[in-house]
Amino acid sequence: MSTSEGGASPLVDVAGLQAALARFARERDWERFHSPKNLAMALAGEAGELVALFQWLSEDASRDAARDPASARRVRDELADVLLYLVRLADRLGVDLDEACRTKIAANALKYPVERARGRADKYDAL
Amino acid sequence: MSTSEGGASPLVDVAGLQAALARFARERDWERFHSPKNLAMALAGEAGELVALFQWLSEDASRDAARDPASARRVRDELADVLLYLVRLADRLGVDLDEACRTKIAANALKYPVERARGRADKYDAL
Amino acid sequence: MSTSEGGASPLVDVAGLQAALARFARERDWERFHSPKNLAMALAGEAGELVALFQWLSEDASRDAARDPASARRVRDELADVLLYLVRLADRLGVDLDEACRTKIAANALKYPVERARGRADKYDAL
Amino acid sequence: MSTSEGGASPLVDVAGLQAALARFARERDWERFHSPKNLAMALAGEAGELVALFQWLSEDASRDAARDPASARRVRDELADVLLYLVRLADRLGVDLDEACRTKIAANALKYPVERARGRADKYDAL
Repeated sequence: MSTSEGGASPLVDVAGLQAALARFARERDWERFHSPKNLAMALAGEAGELVALFQWLSEDASRDAARDPASARRVRDELADVLLYLVRLADRLGVDLDEACRTKIAANALKYPVERARGRADKYDAL
Repeated sequence: MSTSEGGASPLVDVAGLQAALARFARERDWERFHSPKNLAMALAGEAGELVALFQWLSEDASRDAARDPASARRVRDELADVLLYLVRLADRLGVDLDEACRTKIAANALKYPVERARGRADKYDAL
Repeated sequence: MSTSEGGASPLVDVAGLQAALARFARERDWERFHSPKNLAMALAGEAGELVALFQWLSEDASRDAARDPASARRVRDELADVLLYLVRLADRLGVDLDEACRTKIAANALKYPVERARGRADKYDAL
Repeated sequence: MSTSEGGASPLVDVAGLQAALARFARERDWERFHSPKNLAMALAGEAGELVALFQWLSEDASRDAARDPASARRVRDELADVLLYLVRLADRLGVDLDEACRTKIAANALKYPVERARGRADKYDAL
């Protein structure tokens, strides 16, 4: 029994999107292109487009990026693009994203105990 | 009424993860670090770690990356890391990911009609 | 006659690094792994590591990242990693980086005329 | 005496490009935007555009990407964009790229001895 069965409500449920993307690819005969290697590249490309939207904004200005009519559409589109490729990639790899998130959050809770991590970015910073 | 209400089943439901991440940050007083600008950087960093897992694999070998015991854990962890930052970023921006995905898929369906896109990566390729 | 001959001093000269990397790969029989596709992935992975070094820093703090003993080594290493893969990738593609930079700078000068671009990030911003 | 003085020929010489970029930014009053944090983001964005050029290509096809007239210009432009931001970032951080490359190559030589690394991508693979 997986962690997402048996009572616990899921952290994420992406089944609808997963099915929609599988159908979209199948209808266009794009499955041959959708190797995990290629999809990971596509995801990295979209993540690059996303980070570029914020590159000249101050942290404060970045908080309004999805409300400013000039940028809201692009921000929403790039967030969606990353999620689309992520869900498609997980599907092709056979990874259960809900379970993967549970595992990672549990690991993070051990790695960053509340008392020691409080207010310290360096606790989880590579620097 | 949002697109995810009114009968249509959602493409994605990330409410559980969103709440878990908000609590995680609040407990550690990390909200100050979680500007959209910073979170977009963190997401890009995780996308870089994800793509690195596949960089020396052939496309064929990449299909087994989540089954090979030597790499499965890292692949699942990196997928989760990207999703964690993506959901946290959308939350801080006030973006509804389900709605953003619907909009993007509808746009893609118009952009890549089945008949013209079939079997052609170049149809949706930057090259 | 290429733009880097005939009098103009080069913008960049990476011949020494290019030769060192080619020898390094040849000695280890790594050439088979160094397709442009794979090298572009490796570069993206290193760019992700680089951006991650700055993700929780304020813009001001980021200015000292290569002077702080705790971070200086990692910053220098990640900058070098990106450059190594970039030079190796250009070599495998047969691209003259000096010429490519000249072309791009000339294009940027046309795209962002001094008078109209002055002090405006939005002039060259995707948002 | 730095490693790039004293007889050894440099691995890279980016002085010309560094000066050109500094002048370009100064003339447009863009220095305020060019914090290392922001420039690292811009570099990551360009690395994303670069990797996207190869995402649907086979490894074999990727070898011709800079010769195919349809893609050559974009490939050269994206390579240049990454290098421009890398050199500008190193300049703002006060990092000597030639020295950083020497240090990294020496470290790689120790990490991947010829005899043990030969023909094995996994020796330098994150998986």
